[in-house]
Amino acid sequence: MDYQKITPKIIRKIEEIVDKKYVLTDTQDTHPYSHDETPGLNFPPEVVVKVKDTHQVADLLKLCNKERIPLTPRGGGTGLTGGAVPLMGGIVLTFEKMSKIKDIDKENYIVVVEPGVINGNLQRELAKEGLFYPVNPASMDSCTIGGNVAESSSGANAVKYGGTKEYVTGLEVVLPCGDLIKPGGRLVKNVTDYKFIQLLVGSEGTLAAITEITLRVVPLPEVKVDLIAGLDRLSSAYNILRKIWERKIIPTSIEYIDEVAIKTTKDYIQDDLSLPQAYHYITIGIDGKEEEVNRNMEILSDIFMQENIQDVLVAEDRKAQEKLWKFRQSIRDALLNSGTLMVEEDIVVPRSRIIEFMEKSKKVYQKYNLKTGVYGHLGDGNVHYNFIKTSSSEREWEQRVEKALSELFKIAISLGGKISGEHGIGVTKKKFLHLALNKAEIELMRRTKIAFDPNNILNPGKIFDL
Amino acid sequence: MDYQKITPKIIRKIEEIVDKKYVLTDTQDTHPYSHDETPGLNFPPEVVVKVKDTHQVADLLKLCNKERIPLTPRGGGTGLTGGAVPLMGGIVLTFEKMSKIKDIDKENYIVVVEPGVINGNLQRELAKEGLFYPVNPASMDSCTIGGNVAESSSGANAVKYGGTKEYVTGLEVVLPCGDLIKPGGRLVKNVTDYKFIQLLVGSEGTLAAITEITLRVVPLPEVKVDLIAGLDRLSSAYNILRKIWERKIIPTSIEYIDEVAIKTTKDYIQDDLSLPQAYHYITIGIDGKEEEVNRNMEILSDIFMQENIQDVLVAEDRKAQEKLWKFRQSIRDALLNSGTLMVEEDIVVPRSRIIEFMEKSKKVYQKYNLKTGVYGHLGDGNVHYNFIKTSSSEREWEQRVEKALSELFKIAISLGGKISGEHGIGVTKKKFLHLALNKAEIELMRRTKIAFDPNNILNPGKIFDL
Repeated sequence: MDYQKITPKIIRKIEEIVDKKYVLTDTQDTHPYSHDETPGLNFPPEVVVKVKDTHQVADLLKLCNKERIPLTPRGGGTGLTGGAVPLMGGIVLTFEKMSKIKDIDKENYIVVVEPGVINGNLQRELAKEGLFYPVNPASMDSCTIGGNVAESSSGANAVKYGGTKEYVTGLEVVLPCGDLIKPGGRLVKNVTDYKFIQLLVGSEGTLAAITEITLRVVPLPEVKVDLIAGLDRLSSAYNILRKIWERKIIPTSIEYIDEVAIKTTKDYIQDDLSLPQAYHYITIGIDGKEEEVNRNMEILSDIFMQENIQDVLVAEDRKAQEKLWKFRQSIRDALLNSGTLMVEEDIVVPRSRIIEFMEKSKKVYQKYNLKTGVYGHLGDGNVHYNFIKTSSSEREWEQRVEKALSELFKIAISLGGKISGEHGIGVTKKKFLHLALNKAEIELMRRTKIAFDPNNILNPGKIFDL
Repeated sequence: MDYQKITPKIIRKIEEIVDKKYVLTDTQDTHPYSHDETPGLNFPPEVVVKVKDTHQVADLLKLCNKERIPLTPRGGGTGLTGGAVPLMGGIVLTFEKMSKIKDIDKENYIVVVEPGVINGNLQRELAKEGLFYPVNPASMDSCTIGGNVAESSSGANAVKYGGTKEYVTGLEVVLPCGDLIKPGGRLVKNVTDYKFIQLLVGSEGTLAAITEITLRVVPLPEVKVDLIAGLDRLSSAYNILRKIWERKIIPTSIEYIDEVAIKTTKDYIQDDLSLPQAYHYITIGIDGKEEEVNRNMEILSDIFMQENIQDVLVAEDRKAQEKLWKFRQSIRDALLNSGTLMVEEDIVVPRSRIIEFMEKSKKVYQKYNLKTGVYGHLGDGNVHYNFIKTSSSEREWEQRVEKALSELFKIAISLGGKISGEHGIGVTKKKFLHLALNKAEIELMRRTKIAFDPNNILNPGKIFDL
């Protein structure tokens, strides 16, 4: 598809829609919008536009659709597969000026927000009202709710609470032609229309621009406990998981961290967490009413005792918990900082197969001699393998990583898994999509994209080629 | 769109795909498939085909797509808006021979089923394993999981547990062209593809034929309590609801039944439930661990005391609970039996506005002098108004109902609601769709339908016209 380059005439038209000072054309100003958090991925936009309301978004899309200009919506820019990177240039539309919490509706347990609200800010405002939005990506203090919806983000709490798609009950979106639709609302149930809400969640900005989000929230849990334990063998982790499911308790989170990730992060954040020496670490979070938390902690103690695990660090107060989560949320940066380049993946398998997947994966990264930090959402079957470039040439390293990734994806699929659990396909996993989806499904994605965006102006080049 | 009539030649082709004895052409045999539970809606199919596996479904769809024959998938035939009625004739494809529970996967809390499994049968099998599928439509002993997915059904438990769309993690579906896709799986998270799973949930058989369903299940609650109380004023119901949300407890169900529905049902099932005399009834279910249930029951007692409500019937044992739910599930049949024709609706509004909606609705049905039974999911903002024809001519009664419905829909929409919370649009609400959705959204539904089903062979004439 041929796109029009942005001319001074087009700039003038954009400035008729959005105040001149929010239309950035200077390379220095636009540079921060040429990348997200995906290592090594840079594509400069021609213009960056900071919108302030839905009308501006609609007018901009109408203009782009008429003039065949690619437009890439952008949240916090924390994506890990290049979702917000303007592959074809054109406009980056940033929602940083649309960051209002419009309503906290306590009677309906609903919150209505603009897309640019930072996830962590929303969490803090809700907590004041005794409410809780459980979706907590590691980047929660910089990612936006709009970005979370576009990427269908999730976080450590997904074991108990699920991810973004479980919470969106209403959207206001602008279609590529500039038309506005408002599916759903402050509703528990609704079968009036096709479920466009869920289709848009995770569509990575390829189908519509999201201008308002209605989220379901839940009562803030009364009590929270986190613990971390060191394990000598991965098989202990398997036994712990199996017993947790057998005993039918649902922890808030069950995370895994390997030795490399622990050591690298300890050095990076200069932390004094007095962790036991071990090859593997498991963290488990429990929340709820006091009696429920006590009961579940007793069951967990039981399980740890059966597995002969003594070194368990329990964080009962908020300060200790914050320290533990700060540690967890710093792992990625620590690993990134320890090499010159990093390739990350977020394969997901049925949770019962995660240890088997990890054992098979280890053989793969050892075969290709790759330095790897392993950590993530053990309880969701979604553990991250981050490959860190240390020495050797970039090209040669990338070839090894690509071969390893391809093998990991095939292993995951053979176990009933998929190639992305929470980061999306974006740019970096596009070439692997055919491993996970058959031709008919990829073709159906293409036809769906065309039904929404016949001129392919919205975030072109992502997920699949048209 | 012109469709081909089914000729003896086509019948022979169908019989090459499916054993002759499962291809019904005799009017006597096909008659039961000409209607669902929607009063007064009858359209005969030309052929009924009982499929036994996915291959047969794929071959049938390929044939229909090539020969331009309409095909309507059918579950238990309990739909209330005509979703399974073959408006354009052609084939009714029934899944009654595909009713296996393929796997109960205890480690992943997952169950894999064929579409023809009866909801209640699945519930009973899961309970034996200590697992629970919480979606319980009133028709649970005759509706199928395939039908539930197609209609995005929900039931009384939605207050705490949500509806069908919250539980489907994987599907196998045949597209109208005969291609098979298998989005999702036994996965907690997955962002590898567009969320076709949720798009298909509630698409009323218009986008694809579902041949296998993977559902998330949860641990079976340890304890369950149900109560029913009589109220003199609707404002008491409002106060109870408001206090429940304020105290941040989440009951499993909060149902409403009016005096007409109570009396009619008592007569119909000859029940001896010793209910207090009242104008309005509220039932509340609580489930969970024992200490959680006790705690919530104490809070409820508190609330009832504050509202000065003394006559509360508590069903603590299973027998008493079954009796109460049998009563609840018989309301619709009782009302239907009390007149010659019934029009039902399932408007949904934000739960905080439900009492306001009910007060305004009363004025409407009184204005049009309509006999009405009112009952349903108070805690979800989804209370059913069933209009019962008593005397007067059918045509004249229908005109009054249609005017009343149109006013009710407009009231609901003005309160932030939609025209269907759980029954779907089907045939009966098609003409009202424009009240709830703007032109752009209806147009997007059409384009999505065409992306999936360019020849419009799957359940044509439902939801909207192409």
